[in-house]
Amino acid sequence: MSAIPDRSIRADEVTSPEFARLAKAGVLFILPFGSLEEHGSHLPLGTDMMQAEEVARRVAQELGAVILPSVGYGECRSTRNFPGTLSLSFETVRMLAQDIVSELARNGVSKVLVITGHAGSGHMAAIRLGVLRAVEAQPELRAMVLSDYDIAYELRGKEFPEDDGHAGLIETSRILNIRPELVGKARPVGGTRPPKFMVLPDPETYIPTGVMGDPRGASAEKGETIDDYVVDSLCELVADNFKIKRKKSGRGG
Amino acid sequence: MSAIPDRSIRADEVTSPEFARLAKAGVLFILPFGSLEEHGSHLPLGTDMMQAEEVARRVAQELGAVILPSVGYGECRSTRNFPGTLSLSFETVRMLAQDIVSELARNGVSKVLVITGHAGSGHMAAIRLGVLRAVEAQPELRAMVLSDYDIAYELRGKEFPEDDGHAGLIETSRILNIRPELVGKARPVGGTRPPKFMVLPDPETYIPTGVMGDPRGASAEKGETIDDYVVDSLCELVADNFKIKRKKSGRGG
Amino acid sequence: MSAIPDRSIRADEVTSPEFARLAKAGVLFILPFGSLEEHGSHLPLGTDMMQAEEVARRVAQELGAVILPSVGYGECRSTRNFPGTLSLSFETVRMLAQDIVSELARNGVSKVLVITGHAGSGHMAAIRLGVLRAVEAQPELRAMVLSDYDIAYELRGKEFPEDDGHAGLIETSRILNIRPELVGKARPVGGTRPPKFMVLPDPETYIPTGVMGDPRGASAEKGETIDDYVVDSLCELVADNFKIKRKKSGRGG
Amino acid sequence: MSAIPDRSIRADEVTSPEFARLAKAGVLFILPFGSLEEHGSHLPLGTDMMQAEEVARRVAQELGAVILPSVGYGECRSTRNFPGTLSLSFETVRMLAQDIVSELARNGVSKVLVITGHAGSGHMAAIRLGVLRAVEAQPELRAMVLSDYDIAYELRGKEFPEDDGHAGLIETSRILNIRPELVGKARPVGGTRPPKFMVLPDPETYIPTGVMGDPRGASAEKGETIDDYVVDSLCELVADNFKIKRKKSGRGG
Amino acid sequence: MSAIPDRSIRADEVTSPEFARLAKAGVLFILPFGSLEEHGSHLPLGTDMMQAEEVARRVAQELGAVILPSVGYGECRSTRNFPGTLSLSFETVRMLAQDIVSELARNGVSKVLVITGHAGSGHMAAIRLGVLRAVEAQPELRAMVLSDYDIAYELRGKEFPEDDGHAGLIETSRILNIRPELVGKARPVGGTRPPKFMVLPDPETYIPTGVMGDPRGASAEKGETIDDYVVDSLCELVADNFKIKRKKSGRGG
Amino acid sequence: MSAIPDRSIRADEVTSPEFARLAKAGVLFILPFGSLEEHGSHLPLGTDMMQAEEVARRVAQELGAVILPSVGYGECRSTRNFPGTLSLSFETVRMLAQDIVSELARNGVSKVLVITGHAGSGHMAAIRLGVLRAVEAQPELRAMVLSDYDIAYELRGKEFPEDDGHAGLIETSRILNIRPELVGKARPVGGTRPPKFMVLPDPETYIPTGVMGDPRGASAEKGETIDDYVVDSLCELVADNFKIKRKKSGRGG
Repeated sequence: MSAIPDRSIRADEVTSPEFARLAKAGVLFILPFGSLEEHGSHLPLGTDMMQAEEVARRVAQELGAVILPSVGYGECRSTRNFPGTLSLSFETVRMLAQDIVSELARNGVSKVLVITGHAGSGHMAAIRLGVLRAVEAQPELRAMVLSDYDIAYELRGKEFPEDDGHAGLIETSRILNIRPELVGKARPVGGTRPPKFMVLPDPETYIPTGVMGDPRGASAEKGETIDDYVVDSLCELVADNFKIKRKKSGRGG
Repeated sequence: MSAIPDRSIRADEVTSPEFARLAKAGVLFILPFGSLEEHGSHLPLGTDMMQAEEVARRVAQELGAVILPSVGYGECRSTRNFPGTLSLSFETVRMLAQDIVSELARNGVSKVLVITGHAGSGHMAAIRLGVLRAVEAQPELRAMVLSDYDIAYELRGKEFPEDDGHAGLIETSRILNIRPELVGKARPVGGTRPPKFMVLPDPETYIPTGVMGDPRGASAEKGETIDDYVVDSLCELVADNFKIKRKKSGRGG
Repeated sequence: MSAIPDRSIRADEVTSPEFARLAKAGVLFILPFGSLEEHGSHLPLGTDMMQAEEVARRVAQELGAVILPSVGYGECRSTRNFPGTLSLSFETVRMLAQDIVSELARNGVSKVLVITGHAGSGHMAAIRLGVLRAVEAQPELRAMVLSDYDIAYELRGKEFPEDDGHAGLIETSRILNIRPELVGKARPVGGTRPPKFMVLPDPETYIPTGVMGDPRGASAEKGETIDDYVVDSLCELVADNFKIKRKKSGRGG
Repeated sequence: MSAIPDRSIRADEVTSPEFARLAKAGVLFILPFGSLEEHGSHLPLGTDMMQAEEVARRVAQELGAVILPSVGYGECRSTRNFPGTLSLSFETVRMLAQDIVSELARNGVSKVLVITGHAGSGHMAAIRLGVLRAVEAQPELRAMVLSDYDIAYELRGKEFPEDDGHAGLIETSRILNIRPELVGKARPVGGTRPPKFMVLPDPETYIPTGVMGDPRGASAEKGETIDDYVVDSLCELVADNFKIKRKKSGRGG
Repeated sequence: MSAIPDRSIRADEVTSPEFARLAKAGVLFILPFGSLEEHGSHLPLGTDMMQAEEVARRVAQELGAVILPSVGYGECRSTRNFPGTLSLSFETVRMLAQDIVSELARNGVSKVLVITGHAGSGHMAAIRLGVLRAVEAQPELRAMVLSDYDIAYELRGKEFPEDDGHAGLIETSRILNIRPELVGKARPVGGTRPPKFMVLPDPETYIPTGVMGDPRGASAEKGETIDDYVVDSLCELVADNFKIKRKKSGRGG
Repeated sequence: MSAIPDRSIRADEVTSPEFARLAKAGVLFILPFGSLEEHGSHLPLGTDMMQAEEVARRVAQELGAVILPSVGYGECRSTRNFPGTLSLSFETVRMLAQDIVSELARNGVSKVLVITGHAGSGHMAAIRLGVLRAVEAQPELRAMVLSDYDIAYELRGKEFPEDDGHAGLIETSRILNIRPELVGKARPVGGTRPPKFMVLPDPETYIPTGVMGDPRGASAEKGETIDDYVVDSLCELVADNFKIKRKKSGRGG
């Protein structure tokens, strides 16, 4: 975890008039989305939210941004039947994203980044649909939606195995970097994957350990490398998309 | 703020198997609800969430409970047109509450307390309706829904003025107790109230300062007294309703 | 029941051009809401509607108003499992209230009073939400929503017991005043109440007689006193909120 | 209007235990639906409800039945833009019908007749859809849905003109029979009709008087003949469909 | 089936710029709706779609029109429990019709004809409701909705039996005309009909053969006569309603 | 286009009893989904549907399957503002997919393949969500959902350029193979792409030609190679997922 003092602003800590000033100044607002979801027997249920919050914090620190209260729940399909997964419906996620982003635009906010630690395809489609409806109603708003795993998984097939996935080597390393005290010592290995393109009522039967990939070689160092890569890439994308000047260039954290 | 070491459990910090054990053991789960809402020019937008989290933390500590990730957004009607208020629709709040509580029951959780710092009547009706639908579908679940202000406002007409309200003396004192660094020095006074029973498109015109009551006499001491009262009363209600043994008796924190 | 000849206008009895004139003249329109709901073994299922219609009639008579056809159904939670309770869903009540009030505004009506004899919190939240959406879409409309029990229960702790409630002393007295021939001689007494703040699938188990309070001392005289108080208070509120001149002052009926 | 004393039972006038007995005895329940809708400049807005109530009352009297509180609102398309028409949305009508009929079935009622005075095709489709969903969920329920105009218009091309319609000769005669004091002397004549099969945003432009047909020859006697025919035919249909024995045979009222 | 070369345009075969030109030129667009529905043991499931497509093709040929991709599914109530009936919900049909027609109007199309081979009352109400909402939002659009059976059944009581219906003499003849190779030799006869005005969970029990009427005398020649009548009548209606000049007059194909 | 005689079965051409036999025999049912969507100025609006139908036909021929009527409309976001794109809402696509697949399962069908030529992420999420709900309600059903472009784009970075996309080289070649007469000679080249991860109200401004990639080198031969690859890969996947024996092995068409 970074030792740099936190210069990002939390939306819940500012007053109404301060919020008005930030919106008027064209500051970027970041909405972290997570999930409460099984992540093997070695990672905490809030794994997705922790990663999204960490990335949001570091991006906000580097680019200057307001961080909104996290949404700690998501739509979780493949892990739904493991203990501890609380899955919102598609519509609930869509409406949440739509309401929050619409209300930001109604308040004069013009730049919104939604960063979700949970990257399930239904979950992300729900967020994107909600944000699209907000943007279509208020076209002056510019909005960006992605998962930090859209970036982190660029490292698969390079430093990390091609088949790494949910609660695997990358995710375990990142939590070791962010919240090492929450990571269990015994780390189950994932085996098979669900058959391709099937829409299944029982996907968990194909991933009995709740893990995809092999988290045994995970380390905080690897996690730091991944997080640096994610944050750096994301800062570049965000700076480009929203025409924001980066406070520094190159890797770091 | 209490100096007692925090013994409550956070749902996002446990693993899937640990969650299963907690559910099976019949432990109480607490869902804090807040809002991102104007609270005068002196209190932070997250005032409601901070109070709900503080109460949840202390109740969990005293009774033993699992705290779920907070929902930091609510349905806000009367303050909707002040900067910084992000109001979810009624349906979004209803669905969120319904989904989360249903999913808890599906996971075997049998005792749920929803504690909301925001106490708008629409917001609370939405939570109650969502929880009712969850409970009707899974009648083995026992669920309790209230605002800490259902208890705190019992003190109006006693130690506190009858007409104290939103961002007023009680609320300002409580935030002074919990997060003093976030409370502004200049505290506007509220005047008139909206006409009784009218359903208004512009309620903010009747509360120009965004405050109901007079927060100038607020103090952390008063806040502590209120919080102790709320926590103690709530622990008693929860212990009664869910047949949980309190770890200690009497006032404190 | 009052002997004064009825000077109020019924919307179903006027023609299209007459309606247009009334709307243009800025006349108040009153929508009575009731329920078909168990009220002990001694009161009729339409108790709520009868009271709302009586109050609507008398207010219309005093202030001059158009009375819309009553909605004889509501959302009934706590009595839902007693025979004879027909409970609409929250959404149905919301949509009904929203449609009717929106259509009034579309027709040029500028003042609407919704008076509901059923005062369940979900039911009232549904009406309020529907009316709010109508008002937000057509802000020139002024609308007021309340139950006659918002006023009648001001008498609890004064002339009437603090714990009087559903089908109790006040309600039985009022029906004795309005429709004495429908009130049974044997009047069951209520005992316990549901635990506070619990959201229950089976609230009826806590009110086995379907009565809250003790209706044995009810009388038409008490009912008349209550009705006079309700009508007088409501006329004052309505006159204030809508800037209508009262035709007479003081108590009466 | 019939001089026979009214032996039908009103659901709002019975108590909870009485309702339970009626449901258990397999008694027919009748739900009258109307509308608040322009009916020329000579007929009252509640014309549809008045006819449905009259028919319901007479059928109940002859076959023995419980009459539920009327729903005085409907979905009105072609007259929507005339003053005084309050049109519910399709979904609202559907949900109302579905909720009420479902709740009757949940209460053990096994025979339901929905009789609607308003016969717009959308309105009737909404009622039918709602009742269908209720019946599919509770198949032991037998339900019948029709408009009295499904029967009354059998007389077109016989005693009455083929092109008689809304607020025309038949309808005016029936209101002259039921509520003569509400019928205006000046009765506008309808001319053209909307083009066939067109779905129009402005159907009222094709029926400028709000009348279809020629109501000038209307009389209470004609109305009585029509009402007798409707009631007699309906009693026969109901008796057949629900296996109820008629108390008398042949025409009358 | 007609031997005339097909001069109608298929929307799926034109490019984006060509579509723009057609819309701008005010050309009529035709949307054929069908169903996948039991039609006795002798007719194919797509019977309704085949008839709608044939009629659409011939109308387009005669009046000049663009034919949209058919919707091969509908809401089917009375045959729902026979094998092979795939019934969409009312809402799905409504939304489909509304979306397609709204999108046509958004693209500048000003004349739309929806012709549905399936003529169930719920199905048609759903299409009409969807189209009505599209038209109310974009009132410059003119839209017409009907079933070819609104016209074909004008022949009942004349050349064809009064009680002919689903999969009966008319429908079988028409498919013999259009797709003779798909018609089975053994043609079951229908007997009773469901009781009038009943809303039934099991209508199929009243039509055990899935046929209404007697298809044994069906022939391609009869089918051709019917189709000619339908196309000619429809062309006249369409030409009138949309002010389109017919390319030829009188019967033919 | 293949010269092999078509042995696949069309659902609209079989009778009700034949459908029952096919369902009981465990035959695969294929639902082709398309769109009516701009595809440059050189490809027809029905491009997606044509490809899905071609693939469905060839898979059905090889594996033995029943082909359902195509859905010729989809949810189209990025091309929505080009002429000729008719975009269904997300909910409409979801409900259509859910209704059709649920009804298949209700009819005893146990194997369903949904193949969509349109591969927009929202569109596919909608289909997947609808199918998931059908499968969760009827878990004995096995369902597979994909776009032929999930397979065709495996060839990017190999025989075809990495940045080929909508209406580009691959798609143009495929339509040249299937429907050469519909492909325009002038083929616009695509340039830039929308910024990554942005949710845009006006994506078309980033793809002014409506094309992604360079279709100038397209040929029917390339199209045949792609189609063979898609059909062969899909047959293998389908055979595996549904345990169906392929009638022949290896590439071909």
